[in-house]
Amino acid sequence: MSDQLPSQKTWGGRFRGAASDLMTKINASIGFDKRLWREDIEASKAHAAMLRDQGIVGAEDAEAILKGLDTIAGEFERDGVPERVELEDIHMTVEHRLTELIGPAAGRLHTARSRNDQVATDFRMWVRTSCDEAAANIRELQRALVDVADRHADTVMPGFTHLQVAQPVTLGHHLLAYYEMLRRDVSRFVDARRRMNDSPLGAAALAGTGFSLDRDTTAKALGFDRPTANSLDSVSDRDFALDYLSAAAQCSLHLSRLAEELIIWASPQFGFVRLSDSFSTGSSIMPQKRNPDAAELVRGHSGRIIGCLTSLMVTMKGLPLAYSKDMQDDKEPVFDAADLLTISIQALGGMIETCEFVPERMRAAAEQGFSTATDLADWLVREAGVPFREAHHVTGAAVKAAEDRGCGLNELPLNALKAIDARIDQRVFDVLSVDASVRSRTSYGGTAPNVFGSRSRKRRPT
Amino acid sequence: MSDQLPSQKTWGGRFRGAASDLMTKINASIGFDKRLWREDIEASKAHAAMLRDQGIVGAEDAEAILKGLDTIAGEFERDGVPERVELEDIHMTVEHRLTELIGPAAGRLHTARSRNDQVATDFRMWVRTSCDEAAANIRELQRALVDVADRHADTVMPGFTHLQVAQPVTLGHHLLAYYEMLRRDVSRFVDARRRMNDSPLGAAALAGTGFSLDRDTTAKALGFDRPTANSLDSVSDRDFALDYLSAAAQCSLHLSRLAEELIIWASPQFGFVRLSDSFSTGSSIMPQKRNPDAAELVRGHSGRIIGCLTSLMVTMKGLPLAYSKDMQDDKEPVFDAADLLTISIQALGGMIETCEFVPERMRAAAEQGFSTATDLADWLVREAGVPFREAHHVTGAAVKAAEDRGCGLNELPLNALKAIDARIDQRVFDVLSVDASVRSRTSYGGTAPNVFGSRSRKRRPT
Amino acid sequence: MSDQLPSQKTWGGRFRGAASDLMTKINASIGFDKRLWREDIEASKAHAAMLRDQGIVGAEDAEAILKGLDTIAGEFERDGVPERVELEDIHMTVEHRLTELIGPAAGRLHTARSRNDQVATDFRMWVRTSCDEAAANIRELQRALVDVADRHADTVMPGFTHLQVAQPVTLGHHLLAYYEMLRRDVSRFVDARRRMNDSPLGAAALAGTGFSLDRDTTAKALGFDRPTANSLDSVSDRDFALDYLSAAAQCSLHLSRLAEELIIWASPQFGFVRLSDSFSTGSSIMPQKRNPDAAELVRGHSGRIIGCLTSLMVTMKGLPLAYSKDMQDDKEPVFDAADLLTISIQALGGMIETCEFVPERMRAAAEQGFSTATDLADWLVREAGVPFREAHHVTGAAVKAAEDRGCGLNELPLNALKAIDARIDQRVFDVLSVDASVRSRTSYGGTAPNVFGSRSRKRRPT
Amino acid sequence: MSDQLPSQKTWGGRFRGAASDLMTKINASIGFDKRLWREDIEASKAHAAMLRDQGIVGAEDAEAILKGLDTIAGEFERDGVPERVELEDIHMTVEHRLTELIGPAAGRLHTARSRNDQVATDFRMWVRTSCDEAAANIRELQRALVDVADRHADTVMPGFTHLQVAQPVTLGHHLLAYYEMLRRDVSRFVDARRRMNDSPLGAAALAGTGFSLDRDTTAKALGFDRPTANSLDSVSDRDFALDYLSAAAQCSLHLSRLAEELIIWASPQFGFVRLSDSFSTGSSIMPQKRNPDAAELVRGHSGRIIGCLTSLMVTMKGLPLAYSKDMQDDKEPVFDAADLLTISIQALGGMIETCEFVPERMRAAAEQGFSTATDLADWLVREAGVPFREAHHVTGAAVKAAEDRGCGLNELPLNALKAIDARIDQRVFDVLSVDASVRSRTSYGGTAPNVFGSRSRKRRPT
Repeated sequence: MSDQLPSQKTWGGRFRGAASDLMTKINASIGFDKRLWREDIEASKAHAAMLRDQGIVGAEDAEAILKGLDTIAGEFERDGVPERVELEDIHMTVEHRLTELIGPAAGRLHTARSRNDQVATDFRMWVRTSCDEAAANIRELQRALVDVADRHADTVMPGFTHLQVAQPVTLGHHLLAYYEMLRRDVSRFVDARRRMNDSPLGAAALAGTGFSLDRDTTAKALGFDRPTANSLDSVSDRDFALDYLSAAAQCSLHLSRLAEELIIWASPQFGFVRLSDSFSTGSSIMPQKRNPDAAELVRGHSGRIIGCLTSLMVTMKGLPLAYSKDMQDDKEPVFDAADLLTISIQALGGMIETCEFVPERMRAAAEQGFSTATDLADWLVREAGVPFREAHHVTGAAVKAAEDRGCGLNELPLNALKAIDARIDQRVFDVLSVDASVRSRTSYGGTAPNVFGSRSRKRRPT
Repeated sequence: MSDQLPSQKTWGGRFRGAASDLMTKINASIGFDKRLWREDIEASKAHAAMLRDQGIVGAEDAEAILKGLDTIAGEFERDGVPERVELEDIHMTVEHRLTELIGPAAGRLHTARSRNDQVATDFRMWVRTSCDEAAANIRELQRALVDVADRHADTVMPGFTHLQVAQPVTLGHHLLAYYEMLRRDVSRFVDARRRMNDSPLGAAALAGTGFSLDRDTTAKALGFDRPTANSLDSVSDRDFALDYLSAAAQCSLHLSRLAEELIIWASPQFGFVRLSDSFSTGSSIMPQKRNPDAAELVRGHSGRIIGCLTSLMVTMKGLPLAYSKDMQDDKEPVFDAADLLTISIQALGGMIETCEFVPERMRAAAEQGFSTATDLADWLVREAGVPFREAHHVTGAAVKAAEDRGCGLNELPLNALKAIDARIDQRVFDVLSVDASVRSRTSYGGTAPNVFGSRSRKRRPT
Repeated sequence: MSDQLPSQKTWGGRFRGAASDLMTKINASIGFDKRLWREDIEASKAHAAMLRDQGIVGAEDAEAILKGLDTIAGEFERDGVPERVELEDIHMTVEHRLTELIGPAAGRLHTARSRNDQVATDFRMWVRTSCDEAAANIRELQRALVDVADRHADTVMPGFTHLQVAQPVTLGHHLLAYYEMLRRDVSRFVDARRRMNDSPLGAAALAGTGFSLDRDTTAKALGFDRPTANSLDSVSDRDFALDYLSAAAQCSLHLSRLAEELIIWASPQFGFVRLSDSFSTGSSIMPQKRNPDAAELVRGHSGRIIGCLTSLMVTMKGLPLAYSKDMQDDKEPVFDAADLLTISIQALGGMIETCEFVPERMRAAAEQGFSTATDLADWLVREAGVPFREAHHVTGAAVKAAEDRGCGLNELPLNALKAIDARIDQRVFDVLSVDASVRSRTSYGGTAPNVFGSRSRKRRPT
Repeated sequence: MSDQLPSQKTWGGRFRGAASDLMTKINASIGFDKRLWREDIEASKAHAAMLRDQGIVGAEDAEAILKGLDTIAGEFERDGVPERVELEDIHMTVEHRLTELIGPAAGRLHTARSRNDQVATDFRMWVRTSCDEAAANIRELQRALVDVADRHADTVMPGFTHLQVAQPVTLGHHLLAYYEMLRRDVSRFVDARRRMNDSPLGAAALAGTGFSLDRDTTAKALGFDRPTANSLDSVSDRDFALDYLSAAAQCSLHLSRLAEELIIWASPQFGFVRLSDSFSTGSSIMPQKRNPDAAELVRGHSGRIIGCLTSLMVTMKGLPLAYSKDMQDDKEPVFDAADLLTISIQALGGMIETCEFVPERMRAAAEQGFSTATDLADWLVREAGVPFREAHHVTGAAVKAAEDRGCGLNELPLNALKAIDARIDQRVFDVLSVDASVRSRTSYGGTAPNVFGSRSRKRRPT
């Protein structure tokens, strides 16, 4: 039986003996929160300067603190952050070093603050920077897409629904669909940044403080728009991290879709794209092979980023106010997601910039499958006044005729078409080729290249 | 063995025989997408009017269509939407009924559109309305919170960290922490609504159309800010649904936290709140019992709303463009989440409005546990210039003295305090009571009632 | 500002007025738990019979109860379960009807039980049946796969890695990979069923009862292996639902992979499979088109089933013992997942049984891309004693030679191969064709048809 | 506008230039898969020995390989695994070092295998060990629970539903509810281990191999039950990782529930438990404070473990066969989950072993709230033959009477009870105290201490 227990005699409290080690191990966060060192020092400097200006800490002590913090920043920049688990976290690591450097005056730095508002401030600043970096990276990817789209504004390819050829589109138009998705992604990071840009510094442990703080000044010094309005909310809130993760997760979904398309397009059966050597892996034995590893990793990473979002949501569920230690589990999912998102965007950008699309394969695929059948039907409605359902019926007959002859719709002789419906005339051939089809779709947002061209220009301010 | 198969003889293709039934069952969406009937008819009317104005459909046919659609709306309003699975979805259900009503002219309605842009439009409108409703509901809950917070601006309670008594706060201040969370929730729905408010109508199947549509007009008629910019993106995008679900999931997390607090506070051990009969369930046998079922359901619903978000994210992962049928699985998670969010907000609002808080239990709890110890330490720093770490040491000694005497910090005689540190004087008692503590925390966002009061007033424009 | 509130004047407690309606709405579960009616009646009958046999309820009353319950079962079977929200749930619905039918004796049925153990029993029985149904459905799908695999034991197709052609395999072998996945799925449902098969009936509210119950008898009567061992665990546990959902989620992932392959294979670029009319949707306008809607829905459903698992996990997180109302949110995710899983398996089975694979397209694809290059390298190692890395080098040169001549590896003249490496001789052609390659891979579990054949026979007991 | 792009002039393909660096960064897995080094070397040794025994590799070369692998194991044990990203992964790191040590013979090791089956084997072995470790750790926690439960077999505490006092139970009984949950967790890891214990080694890239392998021998040497049955499934399957993660996620939910209870019980309002110094954090300023940080981290970790499960599920969704690079994202979620689960179980074990329960607080809470009301009602049914519903009515009246007098039910004089219902007699007091209530619940699995005692003994074989 899986649940049998050995004799009681053998048992003497295994965990009990290891208690302090276990506690240190589960409790210490320096292994990951050291990544916040820049923000921790910057926020401490702003706090110290404010304490000085408000007369809460003397000028001399304040100067020693500020200088000491600069020294520590230099050390960490040069040597990395020391990981001493007995110091628990980045805040104690900095304060401990400061005490070594300047003595008891270091103790004044923690006046009117708590680790609760301190970590909320540090981490918020880190996430804010990540929002900016995500937006910047996405914009680079947009540029890469627009660049390639411009070169392929006239490259005809099949537009797919259900991965079946539906109607011809241009490759440029197709790639710009991703431009639109990414535009929304940027706006999500911009919204998240705006929403999170309130400074929790000065909320102290949870209730505010009796010291005469100037929270506006520290907020401004640290690039925040304003201080947070409620001290309890300040230390119990992790919305900023969730906003970042939500935006990252949605962005990763878009990247996964583009990655999927590149993988399918790079298959020999499609052959729409040839990935560059620098973004594929090969085989010494099959020199013609190009595995789209990078695209697959981007697609896989979307799973992990979504997992990071789930992780923090579950962790935050049902937590009473104000600070609970569960919230220490906010950082690793965000750090992981940020790293995965950055490399995903950049790798996809690299793939897009370096791959070669194969227009002749795309065109051949577009010409398969009577992809202009709807153009014929639309022509009948538009030019011959045929009701929509009847036009469909006529078109079905034409497709059948072409199929029987083993030719394309645009290769049917006019009299064969007239035999099906007398209202058809020579002008119909203006819409039956894939080029004509693409050219005709001039409705706003449609695939017609000239529309695309003008829209693309608008998108790129000089 | 679990994987043994019976004899081949018994087997003749069970699924094959049921093929068409299975296909109908998995494919039909009318069972749930009938909920979009209002949007479907409204969008069809806008489309028909535009087709008429652009001269694509004749005035007479257009009038018949518009009138027919109004008739259908009346029927559905009165009798509900008929569920005929052979008609698959709400679009075909409407068009089929229209054909019954007005004959072949009904066929003209579908000119220059496709079910792909049609469902994208309908569903986007539905989600947009849900954003508005969520924001409106949340604002009602904020009002309820502010109302109660105003009444309890001076009600002292323990502020908790780690569910341990940390420092005294006011109940008003505590409740307004939720006001802040909900404020961010509203802004998330507002952002989502703004981002989604582009009209996909006119993107047709995926490539746009050759008919001379006026997409600006239909966009405007349906309350959109503009038409979407890329036809492929228009039919393959479900960001609007994910934005809604992300906002709903975060909001539900906030609700789960308030629910958790109400449940804990309503336990006899806390006794901070007495839920009203209307929002608790009792027992014929234990008339004094009040189970916080509604709060528990709100907390549980957060799990389901997060599940809805996960659901659609996974479904969208790795889908190639443009339309894939997987995307039909977008609706049920959104419908479920919307229903769960609405009832959660409303039930929590009802609980907050009808419950009775028990100030004497809260005060008694706040007075436990030397919750003003940090006030003593801060006083030493502020008034006696004692360094922070030394002040902590002195305070620890004072707490120990009070513990030994079995009294509160503010009940220690002055000479006992002076014996610990001679720099302590009579003024210290100004901060040692929970009321004094709360009053002193006047830093911006702090718990001091007067600060709260003024902030509360600012929050409520007359 | 998004967070502005209208004037206080307009506000008078909107939720308060609707209190009882809101509570009824959030609290009632009859809308979904009516699905448990069969289990509820069966468990009630077992309970009543045991109460009678233990002398807790008199024989006459017990007979009235048993007969009444049969009557109700007949009514529900015929007319469905009435949904009266004031009766809250299926348990009260049954008891209320029983009281109407047999009067006060109905009240004795609830002796020594509680809705807490009652719903735990009912739902566990429902989930247990769903495990059996899932296993049975999966086995049918396995049969369909084995059937098709047998017909295609010699059909050569490309084996893909990274969606690039890697080595030839047979279609039979490929399909049997899914057989293996599904075998594990069955074993998961079997394990889940075994683990959940303890009867919670008799745990009462949470503490057990002082009545002299015979829990073994009710357990046996209801098909359980034994009663549960701890009354608190009995009413607070939902592992059985999570076990079901975990198994369903993993199964749905396998289905999503097969669905993805069918979708890709059905694309005109691959053309490996032609879906039947009964499992694809077409277009009146493009009669040659076959959209793999059913496969896409199966793929999409995996997202929803995973969402159901997430949902219940989040709901259960951090719940204190014993029963909390959050747990009422256990049913809808399970019901949804069960429905989605059933239709997914059946639809995929139908697709597999009715589709036509296109061996000539598969073979042509397998012959592309020098898919037997590793066979050449292995031959050099095996037959000519060439070290592995050197064999790779020689093979690379051979592939290059074939590429230059525009022919396949097996079409290179022997002297051309000898010019690359003199150790190559005529026997090499035994491995360079895709058929030879496939035939050669006779290692256990390899793709060689004869191996497959024997393995397939072992899998089907007569 | 958030989506404006700077002038084209500034743009020259940022990603393109960094192509090879980006590819190395996204592709290399040595940073995390080095954790598999023991398994990689062990599996390589088994493979080499089998190649030798089958005559595929000469005895001399094989010995050099085996000796070289031992040397590498010694180096890694001593110095750690070198991280050279240009060597990509642990497999290449080992092979590269082997080549340095023994020259070209190293190249023979990779005969008849591929990194695809190699990593599947290594990782499966690692996960298998993690299953064993999880089961062992859980059993230790069960022992700790049983130990404490034995000491508290008679300690009366309130049994809660809805966090409201419902009926008295014993602390021992309550803790053993977790024993049951953990028993199921062990069985889940045992099932997962059994299901995963097939060896993929020898599946080669995806199709098997033409070398005359003996897969049974390598399977046996590596502790597997048998080789896998299908080569494609062998390299494309990650069920073993998902099975582990599912079991870990469910276990973490149980841990989160116990953690939640400890947190609530440790609050001053409950005061049911006093955490040891070694598993709580305090405050220099508030020496009486004990923050349950470790319990909160355990509760938080459940979110992260669930996130790990979500992550891999999403990554695997919709992947075509056989190997795709997405699957490289399988390891970090499993490594993270394993580390989090281990520390969570151990820390919780430590807390349970070192905390002090406070029986007098528990008893006092149990005596609140008329927790024996159901005992009175059951007594009326059982001893006086009163119908259940009527018994409820009588009990409600008795509770009201006690409430009016401000006493407990068991403190009501007999004549007061008789005034309510004449059928009540002296014997009723046998059930009205919490001790009597607990003692009376002797139904199987009930809370009665003597039942508990015998059950507990059965659980511990000597």
